[in-house]
Amino acid sequence: MNKISLDDAKKQYLRLKSLNRQVDMTRGRPATEQFAVGMRMLKDADSLQYTYAGGDARNYGDLKGIPSARRLFAQLFGVDYDNVIVLDGSSLSIMYRLIANAMFFGVMGEKPWKDQGKIKFLCPAPGYDRHFAICEEFGIEMVVVPMHADGPDMDMIRHAVQSDASVKGVWCVPKYSNPTGAIFSDSVVDQFASLKPAAKDFRIFWDNAYIIHSLTGEDHHLKNIFEAAKAYGGEDLVYEFTSTSKITFAGSGVAALAASGNNIEDFLSHLKFEMINPNKVNQVMHVAFLKDVDNIKSIMRQHAAVLGPKFALVDRRLEDAFGKDDEYVSWSKPLGGYFVSLNVKGVASQVASLAKEAGVKFTAAGATYPYSRDPYNTNIRIAPSIPTLDELDFAMDVLIASINLALAQKADD
Amino acid sequence: MNKISLDDAKKQYLRLKSLNRQVDMTRGRPATEQFAVGMRMLKDADSLQYTYAGGDARNYGDLKGIPSARRLFAQLFGVDYDNVIVLDGSSLSIMYRLIANAMFFGVMGEKPWKDQGKIKFLCPAPGYDRHFAICEEFGIEMVVVPMHADGPDMDMIRHAVQSDASVKGVWCVPKYSNPTGAIFSDSVVDQFASLKPAAKDFRIFWDNAYIIHSLTGEDHHLKNIFEAAKAYGGEDLVYEFTSTSKITFAGSGVAALAASGNNIEDFLSHLKFEMINPNKVNQVMHVAFLKDVDNIKSIMRQHAAVLGPKFALVDRRLEDAFGKDDEYVSWSKPLGGYFVSLNVKGVASQVASLAKEAGVKFTAAGATYPYSRDPYNTNIRIAPSIPTLDELDFAMDVLIASINLALAQKADD
Repeated sequence: MNKISLDDAKKQYLRLKSLNRQVDMTRGRPATEQFAVGMRMLKDADSLQYTYAGGDARNYGDLKGIPSARRLFAQLFGVDYDNVIVLDGSSLSIMYRLIANAMFFGVMGEKPWKDQGKIKFLCPAPGYDRHFAICEEFGIEMVVVPMHADGPDMDMIRHAVQSDASVKGVWCVPKYSNPTGAIFSDSVVDQFASLKPAAKDFRIFWDNAYIIHSLTGEDHHLKNIFEAAKAYGGEDLVYEFTSTSKITFAGSGVAALAASGNNIEDFLSHLKFEMINPNKVNQVMHVAFLKDVDNIKSIMRQHAAVLGPKFALVDRRLEDAFGKDDEYVSWSKPLGGYFVSLNVKGVASQVASLAKEAGVKFTAAGATYPYSRDPYNTNIRIAPSIPTLDELDFAMDVLIASINLALAQKADD
Repeated sequence: MNKISLDDAKKQYLRLKSLNRQVDMTRGRPATEQFAVGMRMLKDADSLQYTYAGGDARNYGDLKGIPSARRLFAQLFGVDYDNVIVLDGSSLSIMYRLIANAMFFGVMGEKPWKDQGKIKFLCPAPGYDRHFAICEEFGIEMVVVPMHADGPDMDMIRHAVQSDASVKGVWCVPKYSNPTGAIFSDSVVDQFASLKPAAKDFRIFWDNAYIIHSLTGEDHHLKNIFEAAKAYGGEDLVYEFTSTSKITFAGSGVAALAASGNNIEDFLSHLKFEMINPNKVNQVMHVAFLKDVDNIKSIMRQHAAVLGPKFALVDRRLEDAFGKDDEYVSWSKPLGGYFVSLNVKGVASQVASLAKEAGVKFTAAGATYPYSRDPYNTNIRIAPSIPTLDELDFAMDVLIASINLALAQKADD
């Protein structure tokens, strides 16, 4: 149990609170210094080649994105050129549109979801709050699936997907997962790829947001789900997403969708009513700057040079405070991505509100669960990217003091 | 009747066809030489100021667009800052989203359109085919309203809007209309602004695509519909759109929505699930380049210097061939925009297919009407922007020969 007395915990907390400092760690945003990377993309942008065989990036046309951008993302995803389209900055927008289309028009000729009664999505949790928010927007019932170190609970997913035709989707961040940092194991990827859904219009939403976002300087292995799906004969099963929001500019980059030819065709059959083309000028700049996967890896090492020490600080401070095997406090040690997932048994909401009162804002406790309902009041998402090292050190002081106080108060109850 | 004999018309047409030249005039795209204008925007893009009070254009945040972009478009629309949001390149995408939201969620608390039975839109025609296509996508019934020189038939619009609660919208391109070039008169704007719709969720879709796109070097007056609507107490009645697709880059510019505070709030309440922010880096570049309305006018004069001679050529060639008062052939003389609307009484489809066989593609005959059904088989949209003057001269040869042949064949029937 907690080794600090309630009195000591109070004193420690109040001293920090009295400093009146403010740190915002609510979202996984890049730090300002990281934009030095993207700024190089804008240099001499007027001297790039904007025409290409069959088109001009500055004029209308090419709803799927420019060929060179599609080639680059095909390489990054590890899929064929024909299975990739490249759109504007937000991959969230592609996910939203796919779900809106499914709701209103149906998936590949199936009945619209709006006419199929209750619709359910499986939500591995802790997970990404903006995924869950899209479900709430469309009235889709969310079913919590526990996350393990190697991915979500696949027995539960297989049972639900294969027995219940109202289950139409599952959210995944398969690499450096938001927020746990988990990288799905080959076995988990194979189990996803071999699902035999009860619903023909079930899809895996494979949000590979951190596809190449290592914190360690070297990339980590994630099995290619399309190759696995091909082996099981079900390439229509998967939509894969990524974006350059954390490679170039947040929300001002480009986003891409990888999917089977059938799924791409289905998506474009609606997208063509909504736009003539995405921002292709931005795509030319991105392709000229990013070049190829090896070059992107070297760009990501520059981001890791900024982010790595921040993640190391969080880990070191937590370990100094709670050791390696605390009964109540544990946390993830991510190899990539933007988050540390902290578990403080039964006191997450108390910790987050104590920290907030002392000037340090975390993502609202519970936000990593559907409907913001963390069943054990345990998970807090730490986003260390934005603060400076000095601010982060203070934020960790406050976090640790808040945990000590919340646990001491609980023990005192 | 036509003064050229069938034999002569055939000879003239076959001679041109034998030249085997190809000209594509299907869409209103900027000419390549016009992009010299936009390219200046990209110069030294890495030395612009990307931070602003309360934000960084390179990071997440500001779903409504950056403040300076909203100020610029507020000036262009002639509305308050709070009534403008600036998004990515395609204004069509904003229109599509508004209609998708209305269908699925309803407009400002009203019942979703999908639950209201038949939904109708009024479609002044000839009009813009992509507006009509959105209606087809959502199964909205389109009602044709005739276009006059000063705007659509307002008696018909008033009667339909005020008597029929299933009428939920009307499409307008109020300035340099697509394709007729009409500028709506003050009286027409007032009649729109003073509509008392039977349906609370009726909206005017005021697509001001050519808001500042003069061909003559001087701007032309269009009454501000929001000022008019304010006078009648109905600012919620109007959504106004524009984009920089024909100012900077086609589909790679920025688009803006002007609307009442209620409508903006309603729109954002859904948009927030779809994206964190639009491409704000692109917005910084646009604001730095476009500066203010006076500067945009000077930019538009550079476009007019390219486009003006092309429009003049079309007009001169038609007048040389058919004079000023031909019984069968008439055409618009636009002061701005991207189109000449040609009427060839009863032979539009024949003219378009003859021209196509001889190598000159126009927008498919009928495309300017809902369901591609031109009731009089009369309208052809000429888009003179893309071809060079030499290509355009050839295209007019073919067009005129095709008209002569189609009319001679008809007279011969």
